[in-house]
This record gives sequence, structure tokens and C-alpha cells, in this order.
Amino acid sequence: MGEPAGVGGEIAMKAWLRRAEGIPPFYLVDDPRRLAALALCLGWRVPLAALADVAQTTATFAQALPVRPVGGSPRAAPGRPDPSDARMVIGSIDTAVADAQAGRAAAVVTNPINKDALYRAGFRHPGHTEYLAELAGIRHSPVMMLAGPSLRVVPVTIHLALREAVETLSTAAIVHAARVTHSALIRDFAVAAPVIAVAGLNPHAGEAGALGREDIDIIAPAIAELRRGGIDARGPLAADSMFHAAARRGYDAALCMYHDQALIPIKTLDFDAAVNVTLGLPFVRTSPDHGTAFDIAGSGSARPDSLIAALKLAAAMAARRRGV
Amino acid sequence: MGEPAGVGGEIAMKAWLRRAEGIPPFYLVDDPRRLAALALCLGWRVPLAALADVAQTTATFAQALPVRPVGGSPRAAPGRPDPSDARMVIGSIDTAVADAQAGRAAAVVTNPINKDALYRAGFRHPGHTEYLAELAGIRHSPVMMLAGPSLRVVPVTIHLALREAVETLSTAAIVHAARVTHSALIRDFAVAAPVIAVAGLNPHAGEAGALGREDIDIIAPAIAELRRGGIDARGPLAADSMFHAAARRGYDAALCMYHDQALIPIKTLDFDAAVNVTLGLPFVRTSPDHGTAFDIAGSGSARPDSLIAALKLAAAMAARRRGV
Repeated sequence: MGEPAGVGGEIAMKAWLRRAEGIPPFYLVDDPRRLAALALCLGWRVPLAALADVAQTTATFAQALPVRPVGGSPRAAPGRPDPSDARMVIGSIDTAVADAQAGRAAAVVTNPINKDALYRAGFRHPGHTEYLAELAGIRHSPVMMLAGPSLRVVPVTIHLALREAVETLSTAAIVHAARVTHSALIRDFAVAAPVIAVAGLNPHAGEAGALGREDIDIIAPAIAELRRGGIDARGPLAADSMFHAAARRGYDAALCMYHDQALIPIKTLDFDAAVNVTLGLPFVRTSPDHGTAFDIAGSGSARPDSLIAALKLAAAMAARRRGV
Repeated sequence: MGEPAGVGGEIAMKAWLRRAEGIPPFYLVDDPRRLAALALCLGWRVPLAALADVAQTTATFAQALPVRPVGGSPRAAPGRPDPSDARMVIGSIDTAVADAQAGRAAAVVTNPINKDALYRAGFRHPGHTEYLAELAGIRHSPVMMLAGPSLRVVPVTIHLALREAVETLSTAAIVHAARVTHSALIRDFAVAAPVIAVAGLNPHAGEAGALGREDIDIIAPAIAELRRGGIDARGPLAADSMFHAAARRGYDAALCMYHDQALIPIKTLDFDAAVNVTLGLPFVRTSPDHGTAFDIAGSGSARPDSLIAALKLAAAMAARRRGV
């Protein structure tokens, strides 16, 4: 479901309307009544099938959009979140994860949430991903990847002010992110011998220390440690020369040191088609790479491209894990 | 000439060999003997015409590559710079600037130099651009723009460690860079009413202060000051969402806060075609957006694309200044 005041419901219905385009069967954990009302408002013919058993998803999908009822009706209207919906938003995530962990679902795809609304209701996790890690009971931090048709990037630090990202960058965090990425490239992306390109922090990777010491003192030791462990990590590379077409052919994922170093190239190249993938969880989890888009929610104008890409990538990753 | 151990000579000859592709007539300030030897080694038929008078350039260009002798022969070999050439490298720049300031040349295009070699010979300027500012006798710092077919970017801070870029970013520097950019867009790029997109420093431009204060305390006041002065500056914008195709249609130049924020998007989109342009000088100056490439110098494999783009852009800018 995600945040019910956002565009999640309408992009899910748009994805179902385009089901002939090879979209894998999915069910929404949501409220069938609000979806029916939304479809009516938008004038879309989206028959809904409330599922008692999610095993019916594939049989149902061609005729109707399967919905696993979330157990109530949210009070939000498009663009206007309601704090009392927080329990239901979290319940939708819990149900999806429980289904994935029990093998009833092949993967979890999460629609955008509104963190402010959840915080006001007492949610204590920095975001979706950390909550999923807790549900999964994993000890190590999961790792965020953004995957598009042109590029895969992994930011080592994420939601930090740039100054804090520089200050908190550590060899251990780089090594952890690279190891999780390496395993995922093999298991989930079918890359037999992954090459990981590691970006430098400073311009031209610091020009041998003339433009900052972090590339020498923090990043190079991480690469050395990874290489000793048999991981083909390369760098630190000048970040500005890593992302053109010829350079991209030389690696399977780029490890970046801060948010915009990763997000600028992938959003420049794959704005509508990039998918957020959480690596290091025991189940497959993807999400569209955009937010709740309150400004256009309810208008029917939100593009489903990123959700569709997230659904397709989740299905492909799950199939690889099953060895299909 | 640029650094004679680098690829400058060979890319200039390659550009002349492609003169039928609308390349504006140019002359090299270089040593005709070393160019003749290089052409011989590479097996290229490039007749050279040593010019006594640069007014003969256009008449000569169709038959031979015009060369204004730099007054000596460099001792460098390809890939092996020689410190005793520094005087000649600087002399080549001085001659080109004197010709432009006297109106004998429409613009200056500089081939890459090797700063280390010049420093060892006593050169005291951080780079090419600062030296040109001194030759031009201007009081304000010139501003670097990178211009490609997809995008124009202006980094407010340039050759600094990322930590230093964050620490030294100032409202005054942003305002100065934007004003110089605004004037240049009108005068040199024929943009009647320029829109300047200003990138935020932090992820998502700081999320209203949750991810750093610089966007609020430093960048927003600069934008307010610019707007009061009649410049259509917009932002601070989330840097990761500024550079996809639809976003780029909304502005004429992007003002970026640090080196990689500017260089990552333009090198991702326009790797071979980006041109370095110095704004705020009394004459037009462009240069290819790459270095001396010692590793491939003398092999003939260097691509002349960026030099050709620099020559064409310089000619177009000079024509606009003349009102042609």
C-alpha cells in the first residue's frame, strides 16, 4: 500500500492495466474499498479481487487486480495524509514481509511511505529499509542499490548532510557495502564474476593526496581488503569519469561514497526506470525510486514506470534465487 | 601548443585533417619542426604553413595547418615532459592572448598543460585560468563553465577536497558565479532571458534543514540576492533530480556547489563533447575538457572531439560578441 495519501494506489492500478506488457502477477496489501473509490474517481476500469488466499494471485491476475485486505480503511485523501493511518501503513509492510518470509510471495515491493506521518505516530526507524531489517531479524545493515537499465549504484552513506557523509565515511562501511553488493550481484543479478567500481570521494580521487586524504586513508585500504578477500573491487576512481557509456561497460556496480555521487548519475541516465533494491535481506525487496508525490496524488497523472520496473526486477531476482 | 609532451599537437593535426567538417580556421602557436616530426612519425599528411602574419590564417587553412612559431623547439618527447619547456609553454599562451586582445585572433583555445612541470619551473598560478585572468588584468575571478550538447554546468568551487568545498562555500561566491554566468549566457550564448538552476549542497537540498543547514543558510540567500538583482535563479534544487532530460529543458545553465556535482552529470552525458569555457574574461577562451594524456601521447589514438567542440564553440561565441 505505502502511504494512502500518495500515488501508490494509482500507479499500482496503472501497472495492472498494463499487465499485458510482461508484468509479473502481484497483489496489493491494501484496502479494496479505497482502491475501488479511487478507480471510480479516475474513471478507470480496474476490477478488484479481494483475496482470501494469496495463492490465488496468479489465477486472478488476468481478470482482476488482486488485493489482500489490510484490515481497515485509511482516512487519508489524495495529498492529505492522516496520522491515524500509520498503523495500517506499517501493517501492510508487516503482512507483505510475513508472506515473503513464509514463501507465499516471491518478493516484497514497497510503495512510497511518508516518514513524517509515521514518525508522528511513533515509528522509530530511519526508514523503510531499517524497519525491514528489523522484521527480518538481520544483524548487519542492509545495503541500498539503485538499479536501472544503464547502471547500478550503491551509496555507502545515504541520508546524511554532505559534511557528515565526509566525516563518517569509513573503511568498514565501504567493505561491508561492497561485500553485500558482491554477494547480491552473484545471487540476484546472475553476474558470475562481479566487478565493483569504487568511486573516490574527492575530485579526481584526490590527485594523490593534493585534494584531500580520504581516498588514500579510507577508500584505498577498503579496496585492498576487498581484493585480499577475492572481490574484484577497483579504484578509487575519479567519480566524474566513471559513468559515461564506455566506462560503465567496465563494471557491474558502482560503489559511491555519498548520496548525490550515486543518485546524480543514475537519475540523469535512468530517471523513470531506476529501481531501489535492498540488498542483504533474506527476502527480495524492491521499491520505485520516487516518493509519495502528494502534489499530483489523485490526479491519475503519476507515471507507473518505476513501479513496473520494480515489479519486473523483483520477479527476476526471485527467479534467480530459486534457480529458475 | 599546451604541454608538448601531451596530445595537443596530434589532436590539433587531427582537427585540421577534419577541416571539411565545419571547423573554423585556426592557427597553432607552436613549433613547426616538432609538428612536422610528429606528423612524419604518425604517417599523417599534414602540410604546415609557418605564418609571418596571422591574418593569413583563413587563406592558408584549406591547404595547410597554419603555425605561428613559438620561438624555439621544445625538448619534450611524447609522454616525457621536460622542465626546460615551461618558458615556451607559457610563451605560447602569452602570444595567443596578445593576439586575441589585439583583435588579431577571435578567440583563444588552449591545449592541455601539465601544471606540475610549470610549477617546477616557477609558475605561481593555480592553473591556466588564473594565469589568463592575470594576463587580462581583470580584478574578479573568472568562472569555469563546462558546456556540452546536453548541458551547461558551472562549479562554484572547483579544485578543492570535498570537505574544503563544503567548508568554503559562500553566498558571495555563488552570487559572483551566477552573475558572470548570466552575463555570458546573454552575450556569448545568445540566451535572451537566462534561467539559472542552482543545485543544493546536501541530499534533496537538505530536506528543509533535516540534512544540513547550508542550503538554507548559504545557498538560499544567494538565490534571493540574485533574484532581487533581476537574475532568474531557481533553487536550491535537489541535485539528483536536476539533470535528466525533462529537467534540463527548464534552465540554461546549472550552478553546482562542488567539482563532482557539476562534472559527474556533464561527463556522464557529454563525455567526448564537453568544452571548458572561461567566463568573465575580456576575450573568448575555451579548451578541451581533458588532460595531457601522457599515457597515449605520440600514438595518434587521442580523440580530437573535445578540441573540435572547443574550436567550434569559441568561434560561435566570438561571432555572437561581434554581433554576427
